[in-house]
Order: sequence, then structure tokens, then C-alpha cells
Amino acid sequence: MNIPERLEKLREQMAAEGIDVYVVPTADYHQSEYVGEHFKERMYITGFTGSAGTAVITKTEARLWTDGRYFIQAAKQLEGSTVELMKMGEPGVPTLNAWLEENLPEGGVLGFDGRTVSMGEGQAYAEIADGKNGKVVYEFDLIDRIWEDRPALSEEPVFELGVEYAGETAESKLSRIREEMKKCGATAHVLTTLDDICWTLNIRGNDIEFFPLVLSYAVITMDKMDLYINEAKLSDEIKGHLADTGVVLHPYNDIYEDIKKTAADEVLLIDPGKLNYALYNNIPEGVKKVEERNPEILFKAIKNEVEIENIRKAQIKDSVAHVKFMKWLKENVGKMKITEISASDKLDEFRKEQGNFIRPSFDPISSFGEHGAIVHYSSTPETDVELKEGGMLMTDTGAGFWEGSTDVTRTYVFGEIPQIMKDHFTLVAISNLRLADAKFLYGTTGMTLDLLARKPFWDRNLNFNHGTGHGVGYLLNIHEGPTGFRWTFRAGEIQPFEAGMIITDEPGIYIEGSHGIRLENELLTCNGEKNEYGQFMYFEPITYIPMDLDGINPDIMTEEDKKLLNDYHKKVYEKVSPYLNDEEKEWLAHYTREI
Amino acid sequence: MNIPERLEKLREQMAAEGIDVYVVPTADYHQSEYVGEHFKERMYITGFTGSAGTAVITKTEARLWTDGRYFIQAAKQLEGSTVELMKMGEPGVPTLNAWLEENLPEGGVLGFDGRTVSMGEGQAYAEIADGKNGKVVYEFDLIDRIWEDRPALSEEPVFELGVEYAGETAESKLSRIREEMKKCGATAHVLTTLDDICWTLNIRGNDIEFFPLVLSYAVITMDKMDLYINEAKLSDEIKGHLADTGVVLHPYNDIYEDIKKTAADEVLLIDPGKLNYALYNNIPEGVKKVEERNPEILFKAIKNEVEIENIRKAQIKDSVAHVKFMKWLKENVGKMKITEISASDKLDEFRKEQGNFIRPSFDPISSFGEHGAIVHYSSTPETDVELKEGGMLMTDTGAGFWEGSTDVTRTYVFGEIPQIMKDHFTLVAISNLRLADAKFLYGTTGMTLDLLARKPFWDRNLNFNHGTGHGVGYLLNIHEGPTGFRWTFRAGEIQPFEAGMIITDEPGIYIEGSHGIRLENELLTCNGEKNEYGQFMYFEPITYIPMDLDGINPDIMTEEDKKLLNDYHKKVYEKVSPYLNDEEKEWLAHYTREI
Repeated sequence: MNIPERLEKLREQMAAEGIDVYVVPTADYHQSEYVGEHFKERMYITGFTGSAGTAVITKTEARLWTDGRYFIQAAKQLEGSTVELMKMGEPGVPTLNAWLEENLPEGGVLGFDGRTVSMGEGQAYAEIADGKNGKVVYEFDLIDRIWEDRPALSEEPVFELGVEYAGETAESKLSRIREEMKKCGATAHVLTTLDDICWTLNIRGNDIEFFPLVLSYAVITMDKMDLYINEAKLSDEIKGHLADTGVVLHPYNDIYEDIKKTAADEVLLIDPGKLNYALYNNIPEGVKKVEERNPEILFKAIKNEVEIENIRKAQIKDSVAHVKFMKWLKENVGKMKITEISASDKLDEFRKEQGNFIRPSFDPISSFGEHGAIVHYSSTPETDVELKEGGMLMTDTGAGFWEGSTDVTRTYVFGEIPQIMKDHFTLVAISNLRLADAKFLYGTTGMTLDLLARKPFWDRNLNFNHGTGHGVGYLLNIHEGPTGFRWTFRAGEIQPFEAGMIITDEPGIYIEGSHGIRLENELLTCNGEKNEYGQFMYFEPITYIPMDLDGINPDIMTEEDKKLLNDYHKKVYEKVSPYLNDEEKEWLAHYTREI
Repeated sequence: MNIPERLEKLREQMAAEGIDVYVVPTADYHQSEYVGEHFKERMYITGFTGSAGTAVITKTEARLWTDGRYFIQAAKQLEGSTVELMKMGEPGVPTLNAWLEENLPEGGVLGFDGRTVSMGEGQAYAEIADGKNGKVVYEFDLIDRIWEDRPALSEEPVFELGVEYAGETAESKLSRIREEMKKCGATAHVLTTLDDICWTLNIRGNDIEFFPLVLSYAVITMDKMDLYINEAKLSDEIKGHLADTGVVLHPYNDIYEDIKKTAADEVLLIDPGKLNYALYNNIPEGVKKVEERNPEILFKAIKNEVEIENIRKAQIKDSVAHVKFMKWLKENVGKMKITEISASDKLDEFRKEQGNFIRPSFDPISSFGEHGAIVHYSSTPETDVELKEGGMLMTDTGAGFWEGSTDVTRTYVFGEIPQIMKDHFTLVAISNLRLADAKFLYGTTGMTLDLLARKPFWDRNLNFNHGTGHGVGYLLNIHEGPTGFRWTFRAGEIQPFEAGMIITDEPGIYIEGSHGIRLENELLTCNGEKNEYGQFMYFEPITYIPMDLDGINPDIMTEEDKKLLNDYHKKVYEKVSPYLNDEEKEWLAHYTREI
């Protein structure tokens, strides 16, 4: 079937259910950042393969909302599909909700699969329908009815993370969660986020792209944990371990019916930012709800001693791989053919040599020259270019080792580059180093500290249009809440730093058509002196890779900035050189020399 | 009557109304920062004269909650009163609400004058009573029944601020307010905050301490403005002007009955953070409410061109007065007897010489030596000490000129002081200068910029336990929302800076038993370059007084810090010297010399 045919089939289903407008988002049932093949309904119905976008189908038209990253790709892929592209953020283009308000007929029925939209989104749709004296229908997955050869739900096996990696047993985690439930008077806690479930049970899997997560839902009560999961994924050994932990297994989708049977005297702890609309709406009306952030979110963000020790090991492995990669690039660009993709593959080779490598921890970014200015650039065989002297390669990649996930960015300079590029490179380095050098009182959030990273840019009327950092999960999500470095307000991010949190430090600059530079280290949050003013804290960079001195212009650095760079490079040499041969050591000494 | 007798009388009234526990806060009906004599009920019933505290009276006991500033004073003043002091924040001392929960009897009645507590406080009391199957009674002012010789409500005359000072007519302001009402679908807007009402109508008065405000309430509709005010305060001329603006006069307290008659189809715009509990509860149940921040708050924070021109003049006056005062201090301390209070009086003399002086804009702080470490110190004849060499005077004071209110702090050094004091002085100067030097993108809030002021302290495991700055009203409140410099989160302060806002920059350091240092300038928020990243902004300091070079240790300043200080001092000389004689000019040149 081509796209117009698929749309016709969908419209037949819409007519059968009395639905006037049907919304198809890009999402699984767990608000995951990446989704598995089974969930790519929006791709199926429009033909557009990008990672973000929402389709809306009416009786006579179909539209796709997507953002600036995908305008060109979407326009191309939608050709001949009858789907109209809605360029989000462009002047005159209504938001999806505004368009729905305008176009849902009076008394109309707005349909969507309630499992694929968040509680908040679903409520907004319901309000729009209400304003038209219409209603929403959220119980049907109409795409499923027409999608022949739909990929099955992933059945990849589950594996366990031993306490030598996780540092805490599932029993201990459950008992801490139950303490939090007691504090807020809850008798049951509904969990839908995959990383929260995997963290709690010390299990991992392979059900979505990049992150080693397991499709599942859970309900934690005081004496057991109901786990909704495809049992075929579980070995007998793991089933035994789960049973020992008080886990009772149920088929994956049964939670939607089971939740309807919640007893009237239960008090449910739910996270309104995480639950999907269908599940929320299936909770019986009389049941009391405590709406709070999942306690697992803060628990898993604060890494324990074992996790920290492992993460340090993973970061050393990644740093050694990067140093070897950097040397290889510096010695071979211009001499042999190296492209964005082949460079990225080479980096992963160096990583694999370090042992205990599972897979890349996210979709790698490897961008040369002007591609560096495209913030979410992903090289394809069509765009892949050769690395040449006079340009820079930006590589934002990560590894999932058993010892933890890494997320690291470096930008490498080849040959002579223009002065403006050097100045920009230097500003990014200054920004990264100053943020890493923060000293702060307990209670401080990333919204305050972000200023350290912004100041070198803002002082020169420059900026970068993304957050400066995010938490990193331990073989879970690579973007993990609840902290972040960001100067604009986000309610969920007003979270003081706690000792043991891992956060990235990744300022950048992007000059369209010319170049992009980003330097990203991971930082470990530590306690410093405690005195009458409170608990002072600081960050320890745990990524040890040179910031390419070929890109540094010392003339625009203060004395304090130079000291920060020299101190950092001294540490890089100390930490990485033990894993290098003499020739590599000599090379590293040169690239970590004092300026 | 002594305090125990007053308490007995109050308990008779409580019995008559069936009230078990009665709460008496420190407040007028408008959530004012300072209150008039008529409203000092908490002082009357406990004998404690401090500016903050809440009394709770039961059938058998009486307690007073107050904060650390007042522990010593309150203990002394409560002697023999039978009122027990509750030291807020001390270990083991329950909060007022926790104590009420514990001590309100089952089925008990909790009483308070609903006009003196905010909507939020009143709702919290109601919840506590509800938890005991009891209720609140908020309609009675029981203290009023027993307070013989209670000071009458202020009848001070109202005066008008001409458009040459206000820069915008009341008509224009009302039309902007009505635009905001339309945007949120409101038909009427209830105003209880005195500064919002005075700003809207360009009137001022003398009804509370320090701030030139007028006791009143207002209801703005699309075609008129109901003003609830004691008519005796209004001259015929002002009455005429008000009538021309569509203002209809009503007796001050009538609003409580009038609001009960609100028509069912009205939509009321109210600010839940500002309305008092009684007024809120008197709104008929069916009436729709739009709960949003008063639009006047942002309007009045953004000063117009005329106001800015006037404020610049007021700041020059204040700066000239300060420079003369500084010279007088430097030349006379150690030679003649000068005390905290006489110094403060002398500063006001210099201010009066500048013309158009109305009165101090807030309770002055003038503290020498170890008194400087008491953040809210207010010198009294009992504590007043002489200024001597080897110490520092901190003066945090302000003037209400017709051209605007000022709020300025300087710390002056006499003779030789220990190195640690110089280092602290220098840190405060660095902190002040770096914050004033901020460049930032539109959208930035004080929660981000505050880091600039904290960093010099945090880098050395030091801190100061107050916000770094607040908005300043134009002959209104000296602490004016909605912006502030503060690293801890306050929901109401997440407000981006707008060009035309005035904000103080006042870091400090306080070493108990030794010294306190604070340096405060006012800053004007300005637009800088606008480019592809957005609108860049910066601050312009509009206070021009030397930062005492006798306290500066250049050795702990970076080159950039020295440049900031030198640039600032150069401006001080440029701006102030035209108002000085030759001898004063020479003196100022020395105290603004390059370091």
C-alpha cells in the first residue's frame, strides 16, 4: 500500500468508529525518548521517517507537524503522499492544538490511541473536544487495524545487572520506594517509565533503540510488585529471582484492564508527567490519587558508590579510546580517506578494544565542517563527507559499557583553521571549564549554574540554542532527569544537585554554513566543605580527553581560564597515560602541554 | 491594662463567639510590608514591638512566633506577659501551623480576622480546622472590641503625582489594565494592594510607615473604577480628577459587603497571592474567578521614560549627598562624636539639601562594627554607639524624592582595619561589580544572574544569607516585585527582566561579633544588541558613590575586576563632580583613583 491508500484505509476505520479527526504521535506507551519498530505508526501513516512529528488525519486531509531539523527531509518524503507539511515555529503556522481547535467540527469526535499520549496531552485534547461539545475516543489503535506486516512487539531477552554493577539489590530499592509511598500515604504506585522499572529491578533488555530497556509496566504495593511484561523475555533463572523479590508476572497489556479493578480504598501514587492518558483514565473515579514525581527519578539520579566506581572505569575506557582516536585522526586525515561515518565507526572500534562494550549509548553524531552547525545532524551515506585539513570534526557519541553509559563530545581540528573558528573553539573550552569549576551551596540548581557556561558567549552577543547539560543514566536513558543545566525555567528541573549525580557539561557554538563546535565532559557532583553557611559542593570532571590545543587561542583567555585548561590537561595525562604505549604517551604529552 | 488583662478580655470575646483558638498576625488588610499604627494588634495583645510575628491565644495559653532577628528583644518584652516565645526555625520548635494542628481541639473553632491573612494562609487554617471536624470564624476583629484608645485609621491627605513625575495618565494605565482583563476574559478586577492602586491612579498618601501609600481597595470594570477609601482624605480638586477618570468613591470597608453582591455573570480577575482571605471568601460561590498575577505588577515594574529620567535625577541627588557624607565622615570620625544615629541623621540632612525630598524611603540601617553583622539591625538610643577608627559603618538607607525612591548601601572604613575585613570588603565590591556587568539574553531571570554575585563568595566557602537584589517602586513599595536576584527558587520571581526595570544589587558579608559589609547600587535594565540569538540586555548602574578604596585589597582582584572598579569610579567622578566645589572635587578624585 502507498501512503494515500493507507490513509484511505484509516479513514474507513475512523468512519466505523465515528471519529472525525485522528491524531498519530511519535511515541510508545512509556514516553520513551527512542521507540521500537513496533511503535512507528506515524512513520507508517505518513512515510516520514524522522524521529519527531505528529500526524493529524481528517475525513479529507492529512497533515504532519514537525520541527526545523526535519523540514527538508519531511518535504521530500511527503511528496505524493497527500500529507501536508506543517513547519512548527514558522510564522503563520498554527500549533497542532490551535489547528485542532479551529478544525474539529462542532460536536466532533477526536480520536487517538490513549496509550501513546501523555496525561497532559490527552487532557488538552479532551478540552478542545469539550469546547466543541464533542468528545475524545482514546480506546482504539486504528493504525494497528490497517498495518499489514506490522513489526511485532520486541521479544528480546531480559538480562540482569548484578549487584557488582548496580550496587544495590532490588529488595533494597523496593524498600526505599515503599518508604516514600508511606510518606505520601499511598498504598500502590503505578510505574510506566521503562528506566524506572529497569532500575528498580536491576534488569535490562533490548526493546527500544539504543537504550537497553524492557517494555513493561509495574504496580508496586506494600507486599508485592505486579510486573506487566511478555514472559517469553524472561529466563527461568530471572523468573526465580523476580519471584524471590515478590514480583508477580502479568501479560504486558493487562494493566489497562487490571487498573479498572483498583479497590476504592487504595491510594495511588502516580506521576502526572509520566503516566499515559489511557492508563490515567482507566483509574476508577473514586480512587484517591497522589500526584507526585516518581520517587525512582531522584533515587536513580543519585548514583551509589559501586555505580560511581564503575562509571569512573567506563569514563577512563572511553577517554583512552578517544585519545587513541584523536591521535589516529591527527595522523591520518589528509593522508587516507576518512569520512564522518568511517571516523565514527573507528571510534567504536577503539571502544570495543577496551572490553565490556555492549553497544553505542545513543544515535551517534559525527559531523564535519558545516555539518557541525546542524545540531541534530546524523550522517547518512548520502551526506557522508570526507574529513579534510582546514576543517573540524565534531563527534558526540557514547558507549554502553557494563560499567555504565557514556556521553562525550569532542571537536578536532585538522590543519590550519581561520582565526574566528579558533576563537569560537576557545570560547567553548572556556565555557566548559568554568562550569566544571563551579563551587556552590547545597540547594543550587542548574538554572543558576548555567550562567557560568553562558557568560563567555553572552559577553560577546553569542549564544547556543540548547541546554548545557543533562543527567546520564546507568545503562538506562542517556538523558536522565531531574537535573539539567539550562537558563530558561522548566518546572521539573528545579532540583538541587545531590552528591553522586552525574551530569554532562556540553556548551557549543553553531555558525550556519560554516562550522559547529561542542565539547562535552561528564561531571560527578561531590560534597565539599560543610560550614555555617551550609554544605558546599563542586563538580569533578570524569571524562579525560584533550581539548584540542590546535583550536585554542590563549589571547582571549584570562589567566584563570588558562589555569583551568592546564590543570585539566594535567589530569588527562595522569589518568590516560598509564593505558598508552611510549609513542602514544609522547603524543599525549604534547596535546596536554601547558599554555 | 497590662498584657495578662488584655488577654483575659480577649478570651471573654473568644468565649462569646465560641472560638477556641485565635490567631493575631502582624498585618494590615493589604499585605503591606509596613503597617500603620491602627493595625498593630499583635503588638497590642503581646507587648512585643518587633516588625514580624504572629500571636496565638487559646483558653489557657498565649504564644508568639517570631524569627531570629527578634529572639532577644521578644524574650525581654514578653517578660511577665504570660505569652510564651516560640523561636521560629530553632530545633524542636513546631511551626505555627503544626502547632495549631496539634492543639486545636477536636471539633474546635479557629478564629482570626480574615482581612489580615492572605487567601493562602486562611485556606491553610481552614484545612487544619477541617482536619479536626471544626471550622474557622474569620468575620470578627476581636482585638478591636477590647482595644481602648486604638489609634484611628490614618486620615492623612492624598496627593497627586503629576504626569511630569508619573509619565503616564491614570486613563492610559486603566486602558492598559482593561486590555489585560479582556485577554483573560475578566469583566472586573479586584485590587487590594495599595501600591497597585496608587500606581494606577497616580496618587500617593501617608497611611502606612515609610511608603507614601493610601489605604484603599478598588474594583476596575470596563467603564468605571470603584475606589473604596475614606473620602476625607481627598481634596475637592482630587475628587474632580478622579471623577473625570471614571472613579466612583465608596467608604473604605464597604467592599466586603459590595463584593457579596457580585452578579453571577461577572468574571473576576484576582491575584491569589495578594487578596485577603475575607474578601476572597465573600465572593459569591457561582462567580467565575480568573486567578492570575495582578497585571499592574509588571506594568509598574517597567518604568517609563519620564520615570527613568526622574529616577536618574533622584539617584544623582542621593549620590551627591552620599559623597558629601562620606567626606564628612572620613574627615571627622575620631575627631568629633559621631554615632550610628547621628550619622544617619547627617546623611538625611545632606539629602534634604538636594531639594524635593519627601521622607526616608524605609527604616534606615546604620550599624557600626559588630552591629553590621546583624542583618536587620535598627539602631536605638540604647544600642547607639560611636564611630571609631579601626571599624566600619554600614549605612543602608533611602530617600523618597519627588523624582523617585532610592535604596542605597555603602560601608565606610575608618583608619586601619584588619586584613580579613579588607578582603571581605573587596569580595563584596567584586560581587557587586560583576553582577552589574552582566550581559544576558532576554528571558533570563534573577535566579540565573545571581550566580555572578555569589561566585566570589562560594569560591571561598563563604555566603550571605539574603537575596542579592529586589525591584524598587517609584514612591511606592521599596521592595517591588516581580523580579529579584536570588539563587533559591521562588515561583513568583521567575520573571524575565524587561528594559526599564530598576533592581538593587546588594551583596554583603556578615561575621557575627566582628563586622558586616554591604554595598548596594540600583541598576537600570537596558536593551543591548538584538541579533539571531535574541535580544541581549545589560544593566546600567545609576548609583554613583565610591566603593571605599580604604577597604580594597587589589591583590585578590583579577585584572577584569580591577577594570570594573576603575571604570565604575571614573563614572562616579564624571556624574557627581559637577555638583561639588573644588575641594570636594579633589577629595572625590582621590577616592575614585585608579588602582
